[in-house]
Amino acid sequence: MTGEPEPIADSARPSSGLPAVQAAIEETGAAGFVHVGGRADADLRYLTRVDGPDREMAVVFLPGDADHEPEAVYCVPRDVVGAVSVFEERADPPDIAHRVVSRNPTTATGQQVRAILAERHQATGDDRTLLVPRQLPHDTAVFLQQAGYELQSTAAITTARATKTPVERDCLRTVQAAATAGMARAEAVLATSEPADEGLTLDGRPLTAERLRRRIDAELVSVGVSPAANTRITASTAASAPLPAGEPIRLQVAPRGPHGYHGSLTRTLAVDSEGGWERRGFIAAEAGLQAAVRQLEPGVDVSTVEGEAVAEVGAYGFAVASDDPSTRARATAVVHGVGLSAYEPPASGTESELHSGSVVAVETGVDDPTRGAIRLGTLFELSEEGVETLVEYPYSLSPVDRLDTD
Amino acid sequence: MTGEPEPIADSARPSSGLPAVQAAIEETGAAGFVHVGGRADADLRYLTRVDGPDREMAVVFLPGDADHEPEAVYCVPRDVVGAVSVFEERADPPDIAHRVVSRNPTTATGQQVRAILAERHQATGDDRTLLVPRQLPHDTAVFLQQAGYELQSTAAITTARATKTPVERDCLRTVQAAATAGMARAEAVLATSEPADEGLTLDGRPLTAERLRRRIDAELVSVGVSPAANTRITASTAASAPLPAGEPIRLQVAPRGPHGYHGSLTRTLAVDSEGGWERRGFIAAEAGLQAAVRQLEPGVDVSTVEGEAVAEVGAYGFAVASDDPSTRARATAVVHGVGLSAYEPPASGTESELHSGSVVAVETGVDDPTRGAIRLGTLFELSEEGVETLVEYPYSLSPVDRLDTD
Repeated sequence: MTGEPEPIADSARPSSGLPAVQAAIEETGAAGFVHVGGRADADLRYLTRVDGPDREMAVVFLPGDADHEPEAVYCVPRDVVGAVSVFEERADPPDIAHRVVSRNPTTATGQQVRAILAERHQATGDDRTLLVPRQLPHDTAVFLQQAGYELQSTAAITTARATKTPVERDCLRTVQAAATAGMARAEAVLATSEPADEGLTLDGRPLTAERLRRRIDAELVSVGVSPAANTRITASTAASAPLPAGEPIRLQVAPRGPHGYHGSLTRTLAVDSEGGWERRGFIAAEAGLQAAVRQLEPGVDVSTVEGEAVAEVGAYGFAVASDDPSTRARATAVVHGVGLSAYEPPASGTESELHSGSVVAVETGVDDPTRGAIRLGTLFELSEEGVETLVEYPYSLSPVDRLDTD
Repeated sequence: MTGEPEPIADSARPSSGLPAVQAAIEETGAAGFVHVGGRADADLRYLTRVDGPDREMAVVFLPGDADHEPEAVYCVPRDVVGAVSVFEERADPPDIAHRVVSRNPTTATGQQVRAILAERHQATGDDRTLLVPRQLPHDTAVFLQQAGYELQSTAAITTARATKTPVERDCLRTVQAAATAGMARAEAVLATSEPADEGLTLDGRPLTAERLRRRIDAELVSVGVSPAANTRITASTAASAPLPAGEPIRLQVAPRGPHGYHGSLTRTLAVDSEGGWERRGFIAAEAGLQAAVRQLEPGVDVSTVEGEAVAEVGAYGFAVASDDPSTRARATAVVHGVGLSAYEPPASGTESELHSGSVVAVETGVDDPTRGAIRLGTLFELSEEGVETLVEYPYSLSPVDRLDTD
């Protein structure tokens, strides 16, 4: 590492997902919406667009009525520096009121949510159904049920999150660009590594998976994104042993970038490959990826795309059925949504349909029980203009130093 | 940045928290325990000790009976490379059976948990109470209740997590050592920065909070820990503006290290400080920290420690009550547990008692409405031997380059 890489450009902040909740309330006539969660809860992030404190907080949405404007209430820990002020500055969406309530550490969040609801509901004979995401904490649910509310799980947020707005796609493009920077660092390190009897070395010291991972992660944070503990390097050797020469090394990065969106990039590299098995697997994986892309269009379901990709990989001489009794390497393909979660709907192995606004990771490859795994993958967006790779990155089995300096 | 920093030494893996669940079941006579959560769920991590996939998974514990050994069942997504095999290799604790069930992506996790329970419970007239953590997802709770189970929230995991074993304290020491490496990098950068009219510069370019954060985070990942999006740099200027000369810059790092444990280190630095207000605030914060440490002993509650520290800081001429009508800078002190979560019980502002095995972050300082904030903080452990700073790091308002090279 020399100098500081230029950070990636920041993206605009996407707008709040509260309108999806508001629409679900209008549709169902529910009395409100409640969610409680921690910083890692992607639905909460979608509603607030704030990288909140490492603590529990609540969002309560109350629709407008004759006496009230529609209102979002944020119940946040009072002792977290800045947490309250971040929420006090909110005005998104602009047509609803936003209010912050300090969360008291000695009282359960669910009890405090009940008190917020009681301000609005004690005097009225409203419908007492509340919409909640399916992962609402059980204790909050019990507090609300004890107050006479019926809880109805809503998929409104999950559904809304599956269609990325242009601003969200910009966030995804930005973090995916950072992912390619991390991968380019990995390639540069591997291209300058030296094969020895015990495996690869770099600067005279063993190049372990763990050491390579640290180099990739340092690049990711230097360009301004979080590795999100998602950088994985897989080879036939242990994480603390030198990486093997002449064998496939699988690299996966899925950093988290501005506003919480994830990238996803997978490559397989081999230093001093003699061709043969891994070369054939690599070509098959690339063909599988292309076959998948040809299938990516609105109305097609994820399982169909996976099936076509597996068939294409299999055409290169790999097993396609999980019950294939042979010990041949097996073709694989996984397609799933990527956004505020590194893995979100549409889920692999389901009949979830793709649509305009879907952003999916596609990963294809082969698994050999003894020789390891080959995987190639990246992000694709479906829009009015068709299918596009979010950020291009070259495909090569042999590592190439694509950086000016190392 | 020159070269690669030496990574911190890894820690041994702490043992599974399942015995705490087992004890709670024996005590209550419950039919089993269920938890469902994602990778960020610290209770799940405590039970499995696996940094699981970015996806929902379940842990079911069934006590032994006349026909069965006690058994832990892990329901994990089948399409996550390695996830199933990681759990198949488990044998902790050794006196119970461990079993892995592939989670089907087309069926709700709660339904699959119900099927796991039905294997054991259909033929018996057992007590049908299940212990669950309070954050069990609402939809799983509904699936279990529909099958006739009564759910009883258990605090067994929370309670067990609050007492750190010697191995857990090693994990905390390891990541806290990495936190000090990140702080030393920040100091080195600030010590070599140049004050200019518009603020600090480094290598001729503006030194913004964001740029300094990237440098700290690069150091953290280079020594092998995750910044966990917890590195915060706060000054009177915006993140994208040059950091101010002569004014306090607050730096907080709370990386996540081996086996998921967090560090916590806070310092306040000022480049070319002229003394005066920030010097007095710094001395007061340091005295507040010492006052807090004198209070740290088994049986004392968190609020008491905070109160004593605030009083000590206040003795240096700062306001101590939140309703103080003056515009004076205000004394603050926060004490809370740190472990698999960066913030966990005992919680600040509560009457939770400290005990042998507690590891707490103590942070003291002053907030001035116009001149900014001063904060000093670190981790302390309470053990049979008394109170100890987990990892020492010098206190200095002026940045000192403590690294050999930069």
